[in-house]
Amino acid sequence: MPQEPFPEAVDALPEFIFGPLSTAAGRVRQARLERAGLRHDVNRAVLAPAPGEAVVIRVRVGPELAVAGVELRFSTDPGLDPAAPGPPAQGVHCLAMVRTRLEWDDLAWGYLEEWSAAIPGQSAGTVVLYALTATTAFGERIGCPFLDPELLRRSVLAPEELDLDRLARRPPEPGPRTYAYGVGRRPIPAWLREAVIYQILVDRFAPDPGAAFHSPEDLGGFFGGTLRGVTARLDHLASLGVTCLWLTPIFPSPSHHGYDPIDPGAVEPRLGTLADWDTLVAAARARGMRLLLDYVVNHVSSEHPRFRAAQADPADPACAWFRFRDHPHDYDCFFDVPGQPEVRSDHPEVRAYFLAHARFWLNRGCDGFRLDYAANVSHAFWSLFREGTRATRADAVTLGEITQPPAVMRSYVGRMDGCLDFRLLELLRAFFAHRSLTASAFEHALGQHLAFFGADLVLPSFLDNHDMNRFLWLVGGDRRRLRLAALCQFTLPQPPILYYGTEVGLSQRAAVRRLEEARLPMPWGQEQDAELLGFFQRLISFRHAHPALRSEPRQAWLLDDDRSLLGVRCGEVALLLNNDERPAAVSLPPGWEPAEPTLLTAPLESFDAAAGTLSLAPWAGAALRLRGPGSPSPPAAGPPAP
Amino acid sequence: MPQEPFPEAVDALPEFIFGPLSTAAGRVRQARLERAGLRHDVNRAVLAPAPGEAVVIRVRVGPELAVAGVELRFSTDPGLDPAAPGPPAQGVHCLAMVRTRLEWDDLAWGYLEEWSAAIPGQSAGTVVLYALTATTAFGERIGCPFLDPELLRRSVLAPEELDLDRLARRPPEPGPRTYAYGVGRRPIPAWLREAVIYQILVDRFAPDPGAAFHSPEDLGGFFGGTLRGVTARLDHLASLGVTCLWLTPIFPSPSHHGYDPIDPGAVEPRLGTLADWDTLVAAARARGMRLLLDYVVNHVSSEHPRFRAAQADPADPACAWFRFRDHPHDYDCFFDVPGQPEVRSDHPEVRAYFLAHARFWLNRGCDGFRLDYAANVSHAFWSLFREGTRATRADAVTLGEITQPPAVMRSYVGRMDGCLDFRLLELLRAFFAHRSLTASAFEHALGQHLAFFGADLVLPSFLDNHDMNRFLWLVGGDRRRLRLAALCQFTLPQPPILYYGTEVGLSQRAAVRRLEEARLPMPWGQEQDAELLGFFQRLISFRHAHPALRSEPRQAWLLDDDRSLLGVRCGEVALLLNNDERPAAVSLPPGWEPAEPTLLTAPLESFDAAAGTLSLAPWAGAALRLRGPGSPSPPAAGPPAP
Repeated sequence: MPQEPFPEAVDALPEFIFGPLSTAAGRVRQARLERAGLRHDVNRAVLAPAPGEAVVIRVRVGPELAVAGVELRFSTDPGLDPAAPGPPAQGVHCLAMVRTRLEWDDLAWGYLEEWSAAIPGQSAGTVVLYALTATTAFGERIGCPFLDPELLRRSVLAPEELDLDRLARRPPEPGPRTYAYGVGRRPIPAWLREAVIYQILVDRFAPDPGAAFHSPEDLGGFFGGTLRGVTARLDHLASLGVTCLWLTPIFPSPSHHGYDPIDPGAVEPRLGTLADWDTLVAAARARGMRLLLDYVVNHVSSEHPRFRAAQADPADPACAWFRFRDHPHDYDCFFDVPGQPEVRSDHPEVRAYFLAHARFWLNRGCDGFRLDYAANVSHAFWSLFREGTRATRADAVTLGEITQPPAVMRSYVGRMDGCLDFRLLELLRAFFAHRSLTASAFEHALGQHLAFFGADLVLPSFLDNHDMNRFLWLVGGDRRRLRLAALCQFTLPQPPILYYGTEVGLSQRAAVRRLEEARLPMPWGQEQDAELLGFFQRLISFRHAHPALRSEPRQAWLLDDDRSLLGVRCGEVALLLNNDERPAAVSLPPGWEPAEPTLLTAPLESFDAAAGTLSLAPWAGAALRLRGPGSPSPPAAGPPAP
Repeated sequence: MPQEPFPEAVDALPEFIFGPLSTAAGRVRQARLERAGLRHDVNRAVLAPAPGEAVVIRVRVGPELAVAGVELRFSTDPGLDPAAPGPPAQGVHCLAMVRTRLEWDDLAWGYLEEWSAAIPGQSAGTVVLYALTATTAFGERIGCPFLDPELLRRSVLAPEELDLDRLARRPPEPGPRTYAYGVGRRPIPAWLREAVIYQILVDRFAPDPGAAFHSPEDLGGFFGGTLRGVTARLDHLASLGVTCLWLTPIFPSPSHHGYDPIDPGAVEPRLGTLADWDTLVAAARARGMRLLLDYVVNHVSSEHPRFRAAQADPADPACAWFRFRDHPHDYDCFFDVPGQPEVRSDHPEVRAYFLAHARFWLNRGCDGFRLDYAANVSHAFWSLFREGTRATRADAVTLGEITQPPAVMRSYVGRMDGCLDFRLLELLRAFFAHRSLTASAFEHALGQHLAFFGADLVLPSFLDNHDMNRFLWLVGGDRRRLRLAALCQFTLPQPPILYYGTEVGLSQRAAVRRLEEARLPMPWGQEQDAELLGFFQRLISFRHAHPALRSEPRQAWLLDDDRSLLGVRCGEVALLLNNDERPAAVSLPPGWEPAEPTLLTAPLESFDAAAGTLSLAPWAGAALRLRGPGSPSPPAAGPPAP
C-alpha cells in the first residue's frame, strides 16, 4: 500500500525526509497498519533467487481477518497475469498456501498468521509473476493486499490514531495485486560503483552559451537552462572529476522541474532538441562521462494525451491507464495534485509504454535512469523494467528514489541496481548539520547501515537535493562544515552525488517552504567560490586515487563523543574529523601522518611528527596515510587519550 | 524487565486486565522498550529442550547501543552462578556469541541486532543456568538485560512517550541476570487437564461450622472464614462436581487476602491451624478433590522477620534478600506498597527458602501451587522451582498468574504446567459481557489462541476472579447471560475455574474501585440461587461426561454476526449460543438435536424435529447431540441460512 502524506507536525526528526514516517506517531501508525489485513511482505521475500532456487512466498494475516485458506497463482509468461479474475488461464499455476506461523503481537493485540507456499525454481532470466487470494471463514475471496477499515473497527481494539475514517475513504483495490521477481542475478555494472555523480536541474544549471539566465518573477518560473548549456559546461564538470551526470527530467512538461511529463519520448523544447541530446551524449562520452535520465513512471502531466483522452470520454480505453474515483475530475494523483494523475503502472499497455520509451533513450546514449517516486510503483513493474532495459543495454543502470526506510530499500535488490540513500542522508545531516548524533552513534549507525546492504545494492550518498534545504544553508553558510561533511561523504564506499552548485558555494535566500528555494540558478564565473571548488576537485581526485575507500572495510580508531571527534580507517587511508567548534589536538595511531597531497578541509594547525600529534582547527577534517611501509593496525576505538 | 503499572486512562480495553498493556499507548511504549538496550528474549528461546538438544540463545541489541561482542556463560550446577562477576569459576563455560541478524526496525528507527550462541545439549533433568554480558565499542562490559535511558535520549529519536525521566529514576540492574532452563519435558499431570477448579478466598468463603461471618465495618476487614469452614462445606463443592480447590494464601499475614505473607511455612491463626489443614486435606481426598495453595514469591509482608532484620541493620545479611534503594525506607516493593517489599528471588538463600516451604506443603498433602504475580519473578527461579517441586512430588502442579499477553505466557512452557488464561478472560468478557466482539471475531480469536498453545501449557479459564468486577455484576445481574458465558467456558478444552459464589448468584454492591467489592462473603442457605446452582451442577456434570470437549478439535458450524449467534462442535457434542437480546430460530445441521439430559441455559422455546429447527430464547444456549449413529460433519461455517 502506498504511504500517503498526512498532516502531522514533525515531532521527532528535524526534517521531513521520510514523509509520514518522519514522525513518531506516523511510525506507530505504519506499524499498526502493517499488522492488519492481508499483506505480502515483499521486503522479506527471497529477493534475487538463483536459477533453480525455489522461492517461499509469505502472506501475513492480521488478527481481525479470519482466513480459511490462501491461494497463490503464478505464471512465467509476462503476458499471463495471475491476478486475472476467474478460473486460472492455461499456463497459470495454482498453489494452496499453508499456515506456517501463528504469533502473538502486542501492537496488534492479537495473533498474526503467516501463510506460505514455495514457487518452484525457474531458469535464469525468467520473470515470475504471482498473485495471492485468500478465502475467509465466510467463504469470501479477497485479493492481497487487503485492508478493511470497517472490519478493523468492529473486531479489534483499533486505536483512534489509525484514522479509520480516512482509510475508509480510500477506494479498495479491485482485486489481487500482481507481484513479480526476476530469476538469476543481474550483476550491477561496475561503472556505477566507481561513479561520482553530479545532479543537474537542467532549467537551473546553464543557459545557452553566450546567453544569460532569465529572471522570472517567481522562483517557479523558467530560468532558461538548456541541454546546450550543459554541454558547454562539461569542462567545468570534467575538471571537477565527475564521471556521471544525472539530469532531472528533460521531457516535455509544463513545469520548471519536469516531474510531470507529457511525453517521455521527446525533449522539452525549452531545454533543447533530440539533436542537442545527441550532442551532449557525444561530448560527455568524449570526457568519459555517463548520463542518467530522470524517469517518472508513477504519474504523468494532466496534459498527457492519454489522460486528456481518458478525461474527455469515460469509454476511452485510456481510462484504464488511470484510477478514476469519479470520472472525470476525481482520480488518484501524486500528492493530491490534480495536474499529476497517477497511472496504473501494472496495466500491460502502460508497462509497455514506459518500457518502450526507456529503451528508446538507452539506444540513444542514455546510461540508465534515476527512477522518480519509485516506491509507489509496483515491485512487479520494476522487476519487468529491469529485465527489459537490461535486454537493451547490458550496462544500463536503475537507481530508485525510495524515500522509505532501509527495510523497504532492501526490497529492490534484484529489481534495481541501487537506491538513493535517504537513510544515510539523514545520518549525515543529523551528525554534521543538526549535531543531534554523537560521533559514536553516527559511526555505529553508519556501520550497521553499510553492513545491512553489503554489495547487493548501490546506494549513492548525498547531502541534499532539489527537495530539501541545501546542506550549506542548514549550517548557516559555514563552508568549513560543508567541507567536513563532504570529506566524510566522499570517502564512504558508496558513490557520492553532488547537487549542482554545492561545489561553488550555492546556497539559498530563505529556508525551504517552497522547494524552489533550493533550486536557485547555478553561479558562474566570479560568483563562484573558487577556493571551495578547489577543495571539491582535490576531494574527488582523492576518491579516485584511493579505491581502498570502496573496497576496504571501514574501522573506527577514534570515537570521542565529548569532543565530537571521529577517526576512521579504510586500508591505507585514514580520516580524522573534528565536528566541533573547538580546535582539537589528537594523538595519531603510530605510523600515521597527514596525507600528501594534503587533503585538509582547513589549513593544518600543526603536526608534531615526533609526538604524532595533530592539531585541527574547528570543523576541520584531515586525511591521513601510513608513514612508512607496512600497515600496522591502528588501536581499537576507545575513550580518547588524556 | 518487569512491567510497571503507570497512570494512564484506559483508552482501548474496557478493563485494566493487562495493566500497562491495557492501553494502546502502553503497548506502543512496551514495543519501543523491547527494541532498546540489551535484551534476552526468553519468550523465543527453545522452551523445553529434549535431552541432548542444543539450545540457541539469542540477544537483541537496540540501535542506541554499539556492541562489539557478547559473552555467554553457563553452568549446569545450581550452585555455580554464571552471573557472578570476575573471571569464570571452574565449571562455568564461556561462549562467544556472534551477530546473526541485522534488521531495520521502523519503530526503533534504526537497526536491531541479534547475537546468538548455542549451548550444547545436556542430559535430562539438568537445569542449565546462563548469563549474558556484552562489551561495547568503548570496551565497557554491560550485563543483560540493560537499558540506559541517557544513551537512549542522546543517540536515537526517543519519543516523549518513552518517559525516559521515569526510566532514569529506576536503579540499574547491578550485573547480568541469571537465566535458566530445564532439560527434558516434565509431563503435565493428567489430573490437571481434567480438573474443574474452584477458587476460594478463605476469609470470605465459610466461617466455622455453626458460626456466622463477622460484619466488619470495612470491606477490607476480616469476615471470619476458616479452613474448618471450607472442610465443612466440601459437600457443597463435591455436589457441584468440583475436583480441585484453589485456596488464596493461608499463611500468616496482616491482610484479609493473605497476599503479603509473613511466613509461608505456617497457617494464619485466624484461618486455622496446621491440624485444620491436615483435616481439610483428608476430607478433600476422601471426595477425590485436589488442593492448590496460592504461593507468593515476588514479595513478602514488611512484617516478615527477614525484612525486619534487614530494615533494622544495613549490615544484616538479610539485606541481600531485598533491593534497598536507600536503606532503610526506600526499597523495591510490589505496586509501590511499602508493606509488600519485593524479594530478590534469584538470591540462593531466597530461592532455597521458598523451595523448602513449597516442599513442606507438598509433603503435607498440597497438590500444587497457584503462583502469584509470577511474571515478576525470574524465569530461572521458576525453572528451578519446578525441578525442585517435582522431585518432591511427581504429580504436583504449578499454575502461574501471568497477566502478560500470550507471547509471555508461552515463555513458561517447560517452567510451569500452566498459566491462568487472562487472554481468554478478555475474550470471554468482551464477547459475552461487553459485546465488543462479533461472534466470528470471538471464535476466530479463540481458535488462534487454542492453536498457539496446543498441549504445551494448561490454561485454566475463568470469567472473573478476586481482582476485578464479577461477571454477573458486569451483565447487570442477568443470570441468563452468566449461564450462557459459563456454558461456553465449561465446554472449552482447558480446565475451568469457578470463582466462589458464582454458582449461587453472588455479585457485588458496587463497581470495583476497591477490589474488595468483588470479595463479598459467600451466601449460604436461603441466600443462594438454587436454580443457578442446579444449572452449574448440570453444566459440570456435562463436562465430566464428555471428554470429547477436551480431546476433539473445536469447529464452528454457525457464525452469525448480525444475530450474534455462534455454533461450535467438538466430536459428538455441539453447542449453540444466542448472545443477543432477541430470540433466534436456527436450522440445525442434519442429524443434530438438543442433547439429553437437556443442558439449556434457559427453557427450550421450541424444537421442530422434522424441520430440524431450534428456537432459542434471548441469551440462551443449548447443547446438541447427533440423533442417530454415525457422525456426519456439520456444514462449514458461513452466512446464516435465510
